[in-house]
Amino acid sequence: MNSNIEEKIVLKESLKLDSGSNLVNCEIAFKTYGKLNKKKNNAIFICHALTGDQFCTEKNPITNKRGWWSVLVGPGKVIDTNIFFVICSNVLGGCMGSSGPSSINPKTNRVFGMNFPVITIGDMVRAQEKLVQSLGINKLFAVIGGSMGGMQALEWAVSFPHKVDSVVPIAASYRHSAQNIAFHEIGRQAIMADPDWFNGNYYNKKKYPKRGLSVARMIAHITYLSESALQRKFGRNLQNSKFFSFDFKTDFQIESYLQHQGISFVERFDANSYLYITKAMDYFDLSQKKGGLSESLKDSKLKFCFFTFTSDWLFPTSETKTIIKSLNKSDAKVSFVEIKTDKGHDAFLLDDPEFHSTLRGFLYGQIKKNRI
Amino acid sequence: MNSNIEEKIVLKESLKLDSGSNLVNCEIAFKTYGKLNKKKNNAIFICHALTGDQFCTEKNPITNKRGWWSVLVGPGKVIDTNIFFVICSNVLGGCMGSSGPSSINPKTNRVFGMNFPVITIGDMVRAQEKLVQSLGINKLFAVIGGSMGGMQALEWAVSFPHKVDSVVPIAASYRHSAQNIAFHEIGRQAIMADPDWFNGNYYNKKKYPKRGLSVARMIAHITYLSESALQRKFGRNLQNSKFFSFDFKTDFQIESYLQHQGISFVERFDANSYLYITKAMDYFDLSQKKGGLSESLKDSKLKFCFFTFTSDWLFPTSETKTIIKSLNKSDAKVSFVEIKTDKGHDAFLLDDPEFHSTLRGFLYGQIKKNRI
Repeated sequence: MNSNIEEKIVLKESLKLDSGSNLVNCEIAFKTYGKLNKKKNNAIFICHALTGDQFCTEKNPITNKRGWWSVLVGPGKVIDTNIFFVICSNVLGGCMGSSGPSSINPKTNRVFGMNFPVITIGDMVRAQEKLVQSLGINKLFAVIGGSMGGMQALEWAVSFPHKVDSVVPIAASYRHSAQNIAFHEIGRQAIMADPDWFNGNYYNKKKYPKRGLSVARMIAHITYLSESALQRKFGRNLQNSKFFSFDFKTDFQIESYLQHQGISFVERFDANSYLYITKAMDYFDLSQKKGGLSESLKDSKLKFCFFTFTSDWLFPTSETKTIIKSLNKSDAKVSFVEIKTDKGHDAFLLDDPEFHSTLRGFLYGQIKKNRI
Repeated sequence: MNSNIEEKIVLKESLKLDSGSNLVNCEIAFKTYGKLNKKKNNAIFICHALTGDQFCTEKNPITNKRGWWSVLVGPGKVIDTNIFFVICSNVLGGCMGSSGPSSINPKTNRVFGMNFPVITIGDMVRAQEKLVQSLGINKLFAVIGGSMGGMQALEWAVSFPHKVDSVVPIAASYRHSAQNIAFHEIGRQAIMADPDWFNGNYYNKKKYPKRGLSVARMIAHITYLSESALQRKFGRNLQNSKFFSFDFKTDFQIESYLQHQGISFVERFDANSYLYITKAMDYFDLSQKKGGLSESLKDSKLKFCFFTFTSDWLFPTSETKTIIKSLNKSDAKVSFVEIKTDKGHDAFLLDDPEFHSTLRGFLYGQIKKNRI
């Protein structure tokens, strides 16, 4: 899978993880777009979501599809690669070239599998900061991310407030809720219940827990869409006939759509990576972090721009409002826009004019301030 | 499992199903509470939800637990068995004594398994009406049910408007939405993906698709609770420790709770019944039925009392409002109360004072009118 992944760094020092473990020879696969300017002050770090990767725009060399944020990132686009130097890396624990459960454990020369250490969003971001250092950049123009990418953006603000000018968390939260954890846990149970999972040691077998991973993806996919979008898009439309089949094959379009989501996901994602990354999201809770967001901003000029979407029930606006209240108490520089849409959580990936124009405006203001 | 099921009828005529199939020697297991009066006008039929059974109150002889609606049904309770003759039957397709996939096919003398015909809510209700006939009752005082039980109550109104005085659909809808179908389909996929399912022929093997059924139950269980109830009850509380485990065992209380829900369900429910009953719910759509609700009420004195719960996102109030609008156009006798609660869909099973007092009032009004 990883033969087309050209850009990669290997961390010289071992990466100390929140669990207490150390990861040696940690690899971070990444992709850059645009050029770093002489002042080195035009770099935007983009953080990807649960199943994303470093190929946020242009053609993804692995899947041959357009990058997952092509609508937003590119020449002349909102995140304009004629102006900005865009960096995007595969998260620690991922399966697109960065160290994860499908990597070789340098200590044993065998695939990690479930011997890969459990990681956190904090660990992911510390690895990203090492990458940014290695590119000779002292301060990022912005860190931008949606969903789990937004969690990473918030983590950047807390862990490295002096190494970033602005942070844009989109459709995210400061913590994973009980309902979010519940959906993830069921997905993990589905994977681990698949007999082809083999306690995570499926790599050298000709089997793969595709049924379990497919069910996990289908569960998650429902949470990415709003009830009204599902109703508008699929309703009770039948797939192939005017009549019910009266069997257990596919009757409704929504069933066929979900099955397709499950099957196509299995082809591009590692089941163990799914376990590790969902766990990292579940562990995420900035309110439990010493000092939290407010404390980290004391001596920082960091500026925030939050986005939420009205029909996003995975990361509802109320969660972001909790952060805004907390940040306001610290006299932080906070902007927040709730975008009206019925497209649910996935709206952050789509071409929403209000979202895009608001983000464009925010970035333009930062360009003037930072004189890039 | 069925040795304690005493009351059962076998339909003399074969039951014609919506699929076109006929079910011969169809069995309906039921339970009654209270006494039928001389006028035979005090009978209330209670319809159970997806995983319910005929033991709606007193001790369930199979599980040795209290009946699922003990808070509402019994001597002196809202559905007062000192006044009413309460009938509750296991739905067609179920696994508590009524004909279903775990029954013996009289044509082959082998367990039906997936050879059981696909059934609908309409089929369930037609079987119930045969049971009511066999008890010598011409007209029911009321049909009352929550969730899938509410669908059956609505089906009674459409199919047998002259055989029931009042209908009380609770936390239900006139159709299953795309999101509802999606959650059910994933549950079915999880069951059918379990290699111990054996295409439904697990009855004579020493295996059972418990992992798949458990995942299906966990998915459904999230939809029965509101996000805020989950957050209030479990939040991000850890199960056994003050610290994260940094492994894939149970960290959060919500994980442990869901796993318990899954495991305990597997002990009491047949996996194939779960497939058949969820399919019947998915097929339910009164708006597609010839004439629908409005038409059926033309010459009927049927009275409706609808209940919804504010935090029920499985069957939101908006769906019931659609029915109310349609019924109002037909000059129907419709009452509707939305109960404020944060307990989600499952609120219909709980001891909610406003819900109970409102239903008590409605039934009292009907008692006076019908002079029972």
